[in-house]
Amino acid sequence: MAEGGAWNERMCAVRVYNFSAGPAVMPLEVLEEAAAELADWQGSGMSVMEVSHRGKAFVACAADTEARFRSVMGVPDDYAVLFLQGGATGQFAAVPMNLTAAGDSIDLINTGQWSAKALSEAKKYGLDVRVVADEVASKYTSTPAAGSYTLNADAKYVHYTPNETIGGVAFGYVPETGDVPLVADMSSMILSQPIDVTKFGVIYAGTQKNLGPAGMCVVVVRRDLMGHARTDTPTILEYSGMAANDSMLNTPPTFGIYLLGKILAWIEVKGGVDGIAAINRAKAAALYDFIDGHPFYSNPVALDSRSIMNVTFLLADPELDKQFVSEATAAGLTNLAGHRSVGGMRASIYNAMPREGVDALIAFMADFAAKNG
Amino acid sequence: MAEGGAWNERMCAVRVYNFSAGPAVMPLEVLEEAAAELADWQGSGMSVMEVSHRGKAFVACAADTEARFRSVMGVPDDYAVLFLQGGATGQFAAVPMNLTAAGDSIDLINTGQWSAKALSEAKKYGLDVRVVADEVASKYTSTPAAGSYTLNADAKYVHYTPNETIGGVAFGYVPETGDVPLVADMSSMILSQPIDVTKFGVIYAGTQKNLGPAGMCVVVVRRDLMGHARTDTPTILEYSGMAANDSMLNTPPTFGIYLLGKILAWIEVKGGVDGIAAINRAKAAALYDFIDGHPFYSNPVALDSRSIMNVTFLLADPELDKQFVSEATAAGLTNLAGHRSVGGMRASIYNAMPREGVDALIAFMADFAAKNG
Repeated sequence: MAEGGAWNERMCAVRVYNFSAGPAVMPLEVLEEAAAELADWQGSGMSVMEVSHRGKAFVACAADTEARFRSVMGVPDDYAVLFLQGGATGQFAAVPMNLTAAGDSIDLINTGQWSAKALSEAKKYGLDVRVVADEVASKYTSTPAAGSYTLNADAKYVHYTPNETIGGVAFGYVPETGDVPLVADMSSMILSQPIDVTKFGVIYAGTQKNLGPAGMCVVVVRRDLMGHARTDTPTILEYSGMAANDSMLNTPPTFGIYLLGKILAWIEVKGGVDGIAAINRAKAAALYDFIDGHPFYSNPVALDSRSIMNVTFLLADPELDKQFVSEATAAGLTNLAGHRSVGGMRASIYNAMPREGVDALIAFMADFAAKNG
Repeated sequence: MAEGGAWNERMCAVRVYNFSAGPAVMPLEVLEEAAAELADWQGSGMSVMEVSHRGKAFVACAADTEARFRSVMGVPDDYAVLFLQGGATGQFAAVPMNLTAAGDSIDLINTGQWSAKALSEAKKYGLDVRVVADEVASKYTSTPAAGSYTLNADAKYVHYTPNETIGGVAFGYVPETGDVPLVADMSSMILSQPIDVTKFGVIYAGTQKNLGPAGMCVVVVRRDLMGHARTDTPTILEYSGMAANDSMLNTPPTFGIYLLGKILAWIEVKGGVDGIAAINRAKAAALYDFIDGHPFYSNPVALDSRSIMNVTFLLADPELDKQFVSEATAAGLTNLAGHRSVGGMRASIYNAMPREGVDALIAFMADFAAKNG
């Protein structure tokens, strides 16, 4: 099993390398800090989970998290940053409720199960949902080339999924949508590489991959797009009210906001998103290079569409899948089975997965192939 | 400051008595357990926050939490138990979306700001919302007597708030609604005393008072009331889909589910809801008796409507309010200021507030009055 590095041995003797697609690995330093102060936060004699969200201490904590997020991601002032509940699935409904009226049209690029879910939810809202590019024929192993599809100028927004967690497919570019707001579900790639926020109308991301535990969704929304929600939009999903109340119109998920702040501080130490991106690219390149160079392993994704967060791969003999997963788990490399809908393997190597974890996986894969290939 | 009892001194030298209305005090034993295993849950080498919600370990954890909740609260099989996001505010929208169509009528009993918020959200959904009893004239210091108001037989449901956190007002009875489903926001009193679940159609409760940290809402819904939601109900708020998928149609708030399980186990050790209720009644009686017997303090709430969870009180001289809060905080008795809308003081004494905390508060109050009264 993998050694826990600087981990305090009285609390945890060993940590594994956890390749879960989400909820997913978090930085060990963040877990250590949270554990140490779980019952006494800032010397208050209370847990951060026990204090009022309207008290001075927590209001300062939430403001710090938002400021760090804005700084790390590069979010301009004309965008609101919201900390909401309901995950990306909540936003599948919130985006049409906030940005459209019944009878409107929207464009959607379909590159996998997550964009398909966004499509399915949007259809509840009386919209003409036009799938302008559909990668289902490729079994979701590619993204459409820029310029290969036509967007509609009358669309209220264009929705896409920059990184599809299940297929391990990612866009190598940001679609140009002119005056039509671009909406992106960044759940599985947010803060993994630099993004020009000004190209987007709405960015949302469930927190359980790169931003902390499950139970929160970060929403970045251009302010001029707020204030036009349908009148029956639930308060918890309505952007302008949440923005006007610093996401505290109701009790926010305080522990998630607190942990996100710590994760952002950890990213800062790593050199910000630029620093993390360099590490991420090197991790992914090492793994893809190994897969491409080894006859026992293969990756089905088009070269220009490979995710640096979710690396899928197939064994030459699928009969060995179970054995692979079982031996990997025993070796401290957990949650490598591919999504149940596609099979094979998947190594999710989010920001918090250290390079050492990828190297350990590659070493294990080489060994497994030598013994069974 | 209050001694931390069995608290492990290497992690936390002192704990205060925290009277916050929510997020609120949690059992120290639960925080201790969570801290000790935060980076290595069940010897997995992973945090419970890092594991897949669809993995065996977490599925078993969630099933255990649900089973304990059913057992502790006494929830029959013909009710679903859901762990959703969005808090009670989410349910202010979810209840009308799941139980009504536009044009329907509902009845609502208004006893404070929380029922008023439920009313305001319900009005978004094209309903005839009839306020059948309204305590606003009493400044929300009482509940309507049973039989003093008339319910409408054609209502799709009757909504009420058994305990109003801000006013410290609670119903001493469960309204009889015949065949009309009774819906209750139990956020600030769930599991504080025995409840006959069969009298209710829907029970919901934000977790940040008696059930753990903020970020989750437990919903108990009679199964025959599910499956009739409006077609545009967001997936995260639609009961039947969530029930059919064990609340995992999307990624649930896994850390909240895990902590709720620990809190339920703690309640079991205290003798279940019956045991907790006896402690709660004694805590509240001691505090009310002191307030009623002391000329410096008063409680404005009608005797039959006093909450055993949120005890409000006024000082004889409101000019001393700030000094009271400040000296109490210095003495390790925190978050006693009343809600900003009503002023005065409020001691929230939820399940996790030990009797010793109430005794310490009473001793402080006596001392403060002797010095300043």
